Amino acid sequence: MPEALLPTIHGPRDLKKLAPDQLPQLASEIRHEICEQVSKTGGHLAPNLGVVELTIALHYVFDFGHDRLLFDVGHQCYPHKLLTGRLGLLDKLRQKDGMSGFPEPKESEFDLFSVGHAGTAISTAVGMARGDDVLAGGKGESDRSVVSLIGDASIVNGLALEGLNNAGTLHRQFLTVLNDNGMSISQPQGAMAGYFDRVRVSPTYHDLKRRGKEVLDRIPGGSILEEVYHRGGEMLKAMISDGHMFEHFGHICIGPVDGHDFPTLIPTLAEIKDIDRPVLLHVKTIKGKGYEFAEGDATKFHSPKPFKREGCRVEIDSGGRSFTAAYADAMLDVMANDEKVYAVTAAMGPGTGVDKLIEKFPERTLDTGICESHAMDMCAGLAKSGLKPFFAVYSTFSQRALDQVFQEVALQGLPVRVCMDRAGYVGGDGAVHHGFMDIAMFRTFPDVVLMAASDEDSLRGALAFMRDHDAGASFLRYPRANVAEQPVEENTTPFELGKAVCIQPAKTDKPDLAILAYGTTVIDARSALPMLREHELDVAIYDARFAKPVDIALVTTLLEAGTPILTVEDHLVDGGFGSAVLEAANAASLDTRLIHRHGMPATWVGPDSRTNQLAGANLDAAGIAQRARSVIQSAKSLRATMPGVSVERG
Amino acid sequence: MPEALLPTIHGPRDLKKLAPDQLPQLASEIRHEICEQVSKTGGHLAPNLGVVELTIALHYVFDFGHDRLLFDVGHQCYPHKLLTGRLGLLDKLRQKDGMSGFPEPKESEFDLFSVGHAGTAISTAVGMARGDDVLAGGKGESDRSVVSLIGDASIVNGLALEGLNNAGTLHRQFLTVLNDNGMSISQPQGAMAGYFDRVRVSPTYHDLKRRGKEVLDRIPGGSILEEVYHRGGEMLKAMISDGHMFEHFGHICIGPVDGHDFPTLIPTLAEIKDIDRPVLLHVKTIKGKGYEFAEGDATKFHSPKPFKREGCRVEIDSGGRSFTAAYADAMLDVMANDEKVYAVTAAMGPGTGVDKLIEKFPERTLDTGICESHAMDMCAGLAKSGLKPFFAVYSTFSQRALDQVFQEVALQGLPVRVCMDRAGYVGGDGAVHHGFMDIAMFRTFPDVVLMAASDEDSLRGALAFMRDHDAGASFLRYPRANVAEQPVEENTTPFELGKAVCIQPAKTDKPDLAILAYGTTVIDARSALPMLREHELDVAIYDARFAKPVDIALVTTLLEAGTPILTVEDHLVDGGFGSAVLEAANAASLDTRLIHRHGMPATWVGPDSRTNQLAGANLDAAGIAQRARSVIQSAKSLRATMPGVSVERG
Repeated sequence: MPEALLPTIHGPRDLKKLAPDQLPQLASEIRHEICEQVSKTGGHLAPNLGVVELTIALHYVFDFGHDRLLFDVGHQCYPHKLLTGRLGLLDKLRQKDGMSGFPEPKESEFDLFSVGHAGTAISTAVGMARGDDVLAGGKGESDRSVVSLIGDASIVNGLALEGLNNAGTLHRQFLTVLNDNGMSISQPQGAMAGYFDRVRVSPTYHDLKRRGKEVLDRIPGGSILEEVYHRGGEMLKAMISDGHMFEHFGHICIGPVDGHDFPTLIPTLAEIKDIDRPVLLHVKTIKGKGYEFAEGDATKFHSPKPFKREGCRVEIDSGGRSFTAAYADAMLDVMANDEKVYAVTAAMGPGTGVDKLIEKFPERTLDTGICESHAMDMCAGLAKSGLKPFFAVYSTFSQRALDQVFQEVALQGLPVRVCMDRAGYVGGDGAVHHGFMDIAMFRTFPDVVLMAASDEDSLRGALAFMRDHDAGASFLRYPRANVAEQPVEENTTPFELGKAVCIQPAKTDKPDLAILAYGTTVIDARSALPMLREHELDVAIYDARFAKPVDIALVTTLLEAGTPILTVEDHLVDGGFGSAVLEAANAASLDTRLIHRHGMPATWVGPDSRTNQLAGANLDAAGIAQRARSVIQSAKSLRATMPGVSVERG
Repeated sequence: MPEALLPTIHGPRDLKKLAPDQLPQLASEIRHEICEQVSKTGGHLAPNLGVVELTIALHYVFDFGHDRLLFDVGHQCYPHKLLTGRLGLLDKLRQKDGMSGFPEPKESEFDLFSVGHAGTAISTAVGMARGDDVLAGGKGESDRSVVSLIGDASIVNGLALEGLNNAGTLHRQFLTVLNDNGMSISQPQGAMAGYFDRVRVSPTYHDLKRRGKEVLDRIPGGSILEEVYHRGGEMLKAMISDGHMFEHFGHICIGPVDGHDFPTLIPTLAEIKDIDRPVLLHVKTIKGKGYEFAEGDATKFHSPKPFKREGCRVEIDSGGRSFTAAYADAMLDVMANDEKVYAVTAAMGPGTGVDKLIEKFPERTLDTGICESHAMDMCAGLAKSGLKPFFAVYSTFSQRALDQVFQEVALQGLPVRVCMDRAGYVGGDGAVHHGFMDIAMFRTFPDVVLMAASDEDSLRGALAFMRDHDAGASFLRYPRANVAEQPVEENTTPFELGKAVCIQPAKTDKPDLAILAYGTTVIDARSALPMLREHELDVAIYDARFAKPVDIALVTTLLEAGTPILTVEDHLVDGGFGSAVLEAANAASLDTRLIHRHGMPATWVGPDSRTNQLAGANLDAAGIAQRARSVIQSAKSLRATMPGVSVERG
């Protein structure tokens, strides 16, 4: 057995010292490390296994200390991280102070942008290319090459297509590598996916060469393509693609080439490195390559939880029932009972549970691919035609459809239902995926309804409410977490517009505090209760249910009785549910000194468990209990000093 | 002279009664009406003149009482409105209770969506097509045809491309009409524009026929295209396009055809009406057609103010100096003094003033076309490379780049400068264009700075601050209005992070009120002062300048002295500047009962003058004075009843 190579690679310089024939061994070692680690901690598996050779080849040919490498989505960055000195961080993948599962500039200068959302790489790359050129004196091209790596699922995102279209106007080196695994997260949607399918890797070099020759024969004299052709080597000449769709976006298109074959990749990249025009290199890869189970079921192995490598099955962590599973089951019932209900996801079938709905109701379920803007507008059209669309989307990705919610949904008063999974802290994905601003953005629209589910029954109650709510758009949020085993209410009260429910009445007429909790924080508030009762504090707990409209009647009753209110939410404290309560009380001239808001602080929070992230924000039971005691204390001081102003400090 | 036809057209049914040879006369009458009206009131001129024949032909062939017609952007809807019974509303174009300049379902059932933002039509059309099919029993295609009309500038928007890509998976009739005038608002940007340029209208029917034959010869047997070809008539056969870029999006592409020629348009539309696959009809039109000055300068006549039709020049209303002009001049200075400053617009060169910057600094200014998401990410890339990008964008369009601000700008801490023109009410464009939520969405990000300009000097001060602010992103808002002739301060204080400036000190130690006004509302607050002094009220006025961070020191001083505060802004009252003040005071345990917020109410406001819109929201001087008096009154009551709660009611 040869000596291990990966431990000797502390950066791309070490990689460049290897002979080309050593690279397959290195690839094999990288695959092994990634499989070992992901089986222990979970993480993105198949996407990373698919780009091992491609990433090695890119670092072998380019110099990304100086050149620019931009990842789209970014969950395919593990091989890149292992080649840029981060092998030692791998064992804490997606954990606090470990290796982020996405590019992270705080980890390494080789990571330019922390990303996680799709479609951004080409556009930021265009900016860097233009910026580098201006800084090179504005007289021409900077000597920094710019390379973007983007998958076939992302490149059909509108932002990516906008980026390509604008990149096509550049008169300098600009390489976009299309990593086409024909799989993306599950199956790419849309007509272009069919196009990619038809573009096959030519089986032999001879074929490629013949094809290149044919292309040249049809090129009008003096074109850039002809110039490139004549300057390029034999291999490049053979690989220029004819009639590739991205030619219309102003790119010289090369390939498709085999993305696992170093003898193809390295000379190809070396030859196109210096083309001073936008080039799209179409690379075919196999998602999950090199790990038979992942190759066989790349969807399941896209981002698995910890699993056992023996046998052919993923051992899924079965600890509890997720909100996602609860959503899927609840929607199966909703769709069975109402033929106008139509379910939509934007490429997050497994992540939102909509894959189950597609199986059962294929005529009334659609996966649009990664295009949240389109998906939202399609929902607007469905609603306009008279259906009841339910769009299941991660909270963080709903940000990509804000303008569509504004104009095509809210302004029209259309009853689109938006179900936001992964609201609040999301755990290992970190800052690029937390759902921290959905309330703040969507509550700006007149006549929309904002809700949160606190457990499975309330999720079902909210969905039933939404199904029947035709007066306008409605939004529901729930976290990346399991539903509580002990329900919030024994018999769940049906949802009534703008009405909170009391889940823990006060023991006396003069309670020390009322907690208005939004979403699953009501569970944590309930857990905080024993810690408060220890101190003989009388605290009522309400499941707020609605952030818009807020239950102003309840708030008024509490404040007029002099009961302090603590709002709790796993959303940014400013602009969120608590702010909505504060604003409503302020507008009603109530004594807002008695309102205290508790939620996510305005800081970027990195990978960790969701439990730890909540605890770090004092949104666990202990944190809520502590804040509650502090609020009760300050309210007592306020009462003591009345009349007066400015009592509580922190 | 023949009898006028237009007055006899009360709806598409009347149109269908005309003989084909009467249509040119009708087109001429529609052009005349539109020219007459726009010359008096302003409005979108050239886009409407370009689609007169096309719109007539669509209504002549389809039945849009039953079929679906969706406009992209929508500013080309005037001929459609005149054909659907709204001639009588035309004389109040873009005015209150008159004819909206955009499609408006409240006006007519022939308008499906009120739109104004680009790229939405195809996506909403996909939703309606799918919805109609489900409602037709899910067993096949609904008998409602679906047609979208989109321009060449919009079709390169990411949302439109996402829509096309997904439309390409439909197995039913679905027509997208590409209105290619090669001009859009000014010049379309991006590589695809070049593609459209190369696709010329074939000069003769004979040519078309020959071309169609050639295409068919190369079609593999049994394809849908072949089937369509054989079912179609001669003209259709001749017009099927070979190798059109949108074929890759799963569309049968037809054309380009001459969009002003009824003998081509009507049979073509009639033949493709029943093709049960997605079809893209590429139509070449001349923007401004039929009005020589508009044809000659379609950019100037895109959306002119009132003008005189004699002579060859537009008489621009020269009443005052706009913020847009002030921005352009200020940026000329900024760019002259700092070679790292880079200016960007997304197809709004004239509207943002960036066209002036392109002239002077072509190497450091870019128009990306209608793609706000891409433009924001390109700015992120520019900033990452070390430049200082200034992105001038309408507030309403900044909503389209929210997710990019989140991930690629704010999360990275990149110093992108966003200059938001048209913040607040925008006048005649109505609800689709008001800038009402920029503060609410952008203040959710840590470490960003939010500012508003109140006059030209403060605009310059803010831009100087932004130029030097490299610690993170900064946002500046200013309205579609003229700068005040009398400046807010005689000598403008330089901008200091988070510091308001007092522009009208109180006369006494115990003022009745402090007004904290954000943006140009400070001018209106100043005008309200005499009305308050009439009542011997002592009111201080501050130009708040910053919505993030708010001047908490000032707020603390005022509240601790018992001075009531009235915040004023032309932004949605909930989530805006006043809410930021309220939240900051609440977090600091100050007496928020003394804080009163005044801003845009949460209602959709239609076309009218900005002046009237502000007055309608009590944001003019009289409205501010009235609210100020009410606040002062309630504060007095509060003082009288302390200790206590809940005093002011409204």
